[in-house]
Amino acid sequence: MFIVMEGGDGVGKSTQLSLLQQDLQKRGYRVTVCREPGSTRLGEAIRQILLHERSLSIDRMSELLLFMAARAQVTSEVIRPALARGEVVLADRFLLSSIVYQGYAGGLEIDSLREIGRIATGNLQPDLTILLDLPIEEARRRRCGEPDRLESESALFHEQVREGFLAEACRSEGSIWVVPASQGVEELHQQILTRVEYLLKEGSSPG
Amino acid sequence: MFIVMEGGDGVGKSTQLSLLQQDLQKRGYRVTVCREPGSTRLGEAIRQILLHERSLSIDRMSELLLFMAARAQVTSEVIRPALARGEVVLADRFLLSSIVYQGYAGGLEIDSLREIGRIATGNLQPDLTILLDLPIEEARRRRCGEPDRLESESALFHEQVREGFLAEACRSEGSIWVVPASQGVEELHQQILTRVEYLLKEGSSPG
Repeated sequence: MFIVMEGGDGVGKSTQLSLLQQDLQKRGYRVTVCREPGSTRLGEAIRQILLHERSLSIDRMSELLLFMAARAQVTSEVIRPALARGEVVLADRFLLSSIVYQGYAGGLEIDSLREIGRIATGNLQPDLTILLDLPIEEARRRRCGEPDRLESESALFHEQVREGFLAEACRSEGSIWVVPASQGVEELHQQILTRVEYLLKEGSSPG
Repeated sequence: MFIVMEGGDGVGKSTQLSLLQQDLQKRGYRVTVCREPGSTRLGEAIRQILLHERSLSIDRMSELLLFMAARAQVTSEVIRPALARGEVVLADRFLLSSIVYQGYAGGLEIDSLREIGRIATGNLQPDLTILLDLPIEEARRRRCGEPDRLESESALFHEQVREGFLAEACRSEGSIWVVPASQGVEELHQQILTRVEYLLKEGSSPG
């Protein structure tokens, strides 16, 4: 079972992912968590270039390909082996983030992005994508610390990100589940846990 | 005018490229040289990861996407601006290297590579690709110093690289020019210079 948490910066993905991980583990599921770019040594090296080398000139297409390189590595090194062992994989972002950040908001041609993504991941599809949705003003208030390269983009960019996520959810025929993230952390967590548990029981019994 | 020098490791690309650059400059052409991965700050960071981080696990698809990211950057940051200024661009490797190294020799699906390459470079095509061809035993004797990640691949891999280059030349309908590289450096240089000068005079007058 491959579950992806998506959404703009500051919507609470990491918090929800770690609450979900804890509760699934308590219920006896073996869980692997990954974030991208990252979760592999190559991914961390790419993450360093992408998010923190502020002085480096990186055009949008190169940015996309670096994310895709990290994604290809985490797919083959972490996600596919964990799925093969029957574990639940929880990912903090996956292909949808590239389609939205570099496509809808970044201006790259979206069908080309889908094609590169399909090749890079060997067409791995999440069983469920949980999209945490929040008005961008509220998301900005929640972010803390020094913003990284992508977080520093303009308000317009972040608005396009949000609209892109919602547009993709519309065309996903249910595989992207939109959850309003303005409710309380615990309430949101229970809502997510209920749906994920239902899905897991439907699909297979705890490992 | 965009000219690419291609071939396996140790065939003498760098030597020929720099001789060609010098003679074109003497004749009044403005010349920009680039190598890949490299020639941009992002490219050098990627080069460091790809060729020298020997302990890092990088799967073939991630390797491809890192090369493509460097290529996208050098295309937009160096090659296209130089071509727009009317300069001659000489490149040490371009898309063909990925098709051959990661496709023919590395086992990735070649049509997928072409598609990613087309997207990454905005379909930029060299006016001429000069393929330096050498039996792999002779190429290995010529290489010196500590081999990098790709140079350390097996003899079979290098044989597949050579065969891949020649197969692509066959299907290129003349845009890839195969030059036997076993002749002397100066003789080879004169042969290349003659053809490039002819092409330049045909296309445009020196800037």
